[in-house]
Amino acid sequence: MNPLIDRLRHIVGDGNVLCEGDLSAWEQDWRKRSRGKALAVVRPGSTAEAALVVKACAAAGTSIVAQGGNTGMVVGSVPDASGTQVVLSLQRLNAVRHLDAANLTMTAEAGCVLQSLQQAAEAAGFLFPLSLAAEGSCTIGGNLATNAGGTQVVRYGNARELCLGLEVVTAQGEIWNGLSGLRKDNTGYDLRDLFIGSEGTLGIITAATMKLYPLPAATLTAWAAVPSLEEAVRLLGLAHKHLGASLTGFEVMGQFALELVARHFRQMRVPLYQQTPFCVLLENSDHESELHARGRFEGLLDTAMEAACVTDAVVAESLTQAHQLWHIRESIPLAQAEEGLNIKHDISLPVSAIAEFCRVTDALLAREIPGVRMVNFGHLGDGNLHYNVQTPPGGDAAAFLKDWEEKVNTLVFDSVQRFGGSISAEHGIGSLKVDKLEQHKSPVALEMMRAIKRALDPHNLMNPGRVVRL
Amino acid sequence: MNPLIDRLRHIVGDGNVLCEGDLSAWEQDWRKRSRGKALAVVRPGSTAEAALVVKACAAAGTSIVAQGGNTGMVVGSVPDASGTQVVLSLQRLNAVRHLDAANLTMTAEAGCVLQSLQQAAEAAGFLFPLSLAAEGSCTIGGNLATNAGGTQVVRYGNARELCLGLEVVTAQGEIWNGLSGLRKDNTGYDLRDLFIGSEGTLGIITAATMKLYPLPAATLTAWAAVPSLEEAVRLLGLAHKHLGASLTGFEVMGQFALELVARHFRQMRVPLYQQTPFCVLLENSDHESELHARGRFEGLLDTAMEAACVTDAVVAESLTQAHQLWHIRESIPLAQAEEGLNIKHDISLPVSAIAEFCRVTDALLAREIPGVRMVNFGHLGDGNLHYNVQTPPGGDAAAFLKDWEEKVNTLVFDSVQRFGGSISAEHGIGSLKVDKLEQHKSPVALEMMRAIKRALDPHNLMNPGRVVRL
Repeated sequence: MNPLIDRLRHIVGDGNVLCEGDLSAWEQDWRKRSRGKALAVVRPGSTAEAALVVKACAAAGTSIVAQGGNTGMVVGSVPDASGTQVVLSLQRLNAVRHLDAANLTMTAEAGCVLQSLQQAAEAAGFLFPLSLAAEGSCTIGGNLATNAGGTQVVRYGNARELCLGLEVVTAQGEIWNGLSGLRKDNTGYDLRDLFIGSEGTLGIITAATMKLYPLPAATLTAWAAVPSLEEAVRLLGLAHKHLGASLTGFEVMGQFALELVARHFRQMRVPLYQQTPFCVLLENSDHESELHARGRFEGLLDTAMEAACVTDAVVAESLTQAHQLWHIRESIPLAQAEEGLNIKHDISLPVSAIAEFCRVTDALLAREIPGVRMVNFGHLGDGNLHYNVQTPPGGDAAAFLKDWEEKVNTLVFDSVQRFGGSISAEHGIGSLKVDKLEQHKSPVALEMMRAIKRALDPHNLMNPGRVVRL
Repeated sequence: MNPLIDRLRHIVGDGNVLCEGDLSAWEQDWRKRSRGKALAVVRPGSTAEAALVVKACAAAGTSIVAQGGNTGMVVGSVPDASGTQVVLSLQRLNAVRHLDAANLTMTAEAGCVLQSLQQAAEAAGFLFPLSLAAEGSCTIGGNLATNAGGTQVVRYGNARELCLGLEVVTAQGEIWNGLSGLRKDNTGYDLRDLFIGSEGTLGIITAATMKLYPLPAATLTAWAAVPSLEEAVRLLGLAHKHLGASLTGFEVMGQFALELVARHFRQMRVPLYQQTPFCVLLENSDHESELHARGRFEGLLDTAMEAACVTDAVVAESLTQAHQLWHIRESIPLAQAEEGLNIKHDISLPVSAIAEFCRVTDALLAREIPGVRMVNFGHLGDGNLHYNVQTPPGGDAAAFLKDWEEKVNTLVFDSVQRFGGSISAEHGIGSLKVDKLEQHKSPVALEMMRAIKRALDPHNLMNPGRVVRL
């Protein structure tokens, strides 16, 4: 018997140390890219228990993979194949500890499912604006560990911008209580933002204090046909100017992406896509009234049509219709999967460079792979594209991936770098992009990252080999 | 002759290495709390020169104090008294390198004066919202090094939230080009936010890419009498709900603070303060029109009066009147100085705790110092108070400070800690609060800060002894 397992059972109780049976829920990543093997899955029931687990593992020299909802896209929250790593699941740490209405904050444990936090906020009359496809199963701890983005970043920022304070178990098994509900606190280095986005490689986030916002009086959704990406960017500028902070969503979708939705989900009525290369979904959140929101939206769209950056547009007449429009946008990845395997990129660029980047990179890909089909969509308001590459029509997707994935990634990431973009906008690095990061990140930045990793986790026990290799 | 001085002259030119004459502009801090002595003041003209200066100093084992406008409040940007430190002034690095309208960003060098950036943004039709009393002389590099706050944090956040990317000279004299104009970039640890607020102790910020916002169509200012701090907090909640992100300023001012302005600046007409313990200044920035803004503002104030959290209010009729109201708020520190020396605290608290904190702490101070006068004002929207303590009427201010400063600081900071607040909301630590930080910061956090400092600046040459002592 492994004495560490005994010790872990003593800390969290026998039922919360899983070593046998089907552990695929913890060992297999979301996109099924990798299947690891854990020494054990440990599920502490409190921050104190989590700290003891880390101390026990550290004493045994055993490395730890922290895991929330295990919905990450870059193989960052599952164990490696060695069978020697402990998965520390935060799922049982799922209490909303405190909602402070006057302070507009909510303190929640890492294992809280994102959707349950949205609901807790709304029940108290507030908006918690973090929103993304996996919200029904991802956890706030994972959202923070990966600095999740999603659909409202144009107004509210990423998970980082929504967080005021953290509670963290360090690599030494100490508890740092940094659960500040303060909007200003200049007492030393910004440890909070260092842990946010560090993907469990520096310590384990066990709780967080998050910002809340007043619920808008009305939220309206529009769908616009635009003649080009350049014009989509111009529309974004007009929308910022006319709507200010009421612009809470700005998504772009290429024609082929929408064609896939129409083809594979025939019950969905996809508007306006047949005659135009791109459609844009806009969201307008208003603190006055629906009437006012509608007037402002129509004013914007009239202006945009006069300026010829929109050729046609509809404003949803009801909440149901608005949900249907969002549902089309959110169905693109599923429609893509129905069409077959594809090569995905989660990239960002300066908004001003997006149109040119796509023109140049589309052409490079078409030259290499005649007939290649681009599934291009994303959060244009934040410069974030999901720039995905699908086989030529009728091609064998598995063979295509095998032959082309590495070459396509290199081509796309080299182009991203030339245009001053990022090879990972919102998904992080995990293990999937560790090599790519070494190729594309500045050596000075990489060396600082390594120095910080060595400083905070000197024995390299926290999710080793992910994000940055020592 | 010191060979380092020779080397520095070779790098930046003779005229940019100052060793003699009156160097008080660089050696004396803003509040005249401390006068240091520099080995030399060095003024590089480019990032490359700044990097060579750091390399030369590092090779000589000479420590470096980075300096922008030298308007800091905590003695963090002047040399110590040893005569061995080099002051690296960023003043000559003052170009706006690039304004990207479609990306809503502006890239500027560290030595740019804040006001000149506000003007550059406005000239291009945009708002750069960082705004604070020293804006005519402070620099963006200093603003970022101290994570400056100011008057618009309630809407736009601190300097940190406005920054998308940095260029930094590391302690090794390497240049890290992290000048990203990206709103999403999850490629590794958040080095940007680690340098922001590190007060020159980890490296030197030489340039930054900052966010721009669309200029509002109208900005209105109101002044409201409120019966208590509790009611001021209730008014804040109503203002968030009614105005949403249009609420761009929310300042509170105690009666005695306003009385000092009225007494020492007789030409200013201070409204409504005589019959009420607190006044609030609200700012409403609207993307539609002045008419719309006025309607929304009046609706809010009517609701607040019905709810009895406002007893009387005026909305400025003109821009001139609005400036006059802001000018009253900004004159409080000067009026206080006219009244005599006083003990200042730049603290923050959860907004929900502010009223109780003031009641308890006011009472503790009144018990210790009969007749003590509280000058209490600040950015209530962010939970940030300037909670200042003035002698009892007719008291000898110098003697009062000598006898009481340390005791009052201890009493106030202990109370801040009990209420979950911060002992430095927006001014930072510098050298003035290094001892206090050691007393009030969690030992786990302090140890992580030290580990990071050792990792990035192993020879302790960057502004040593400031923020955190090794």
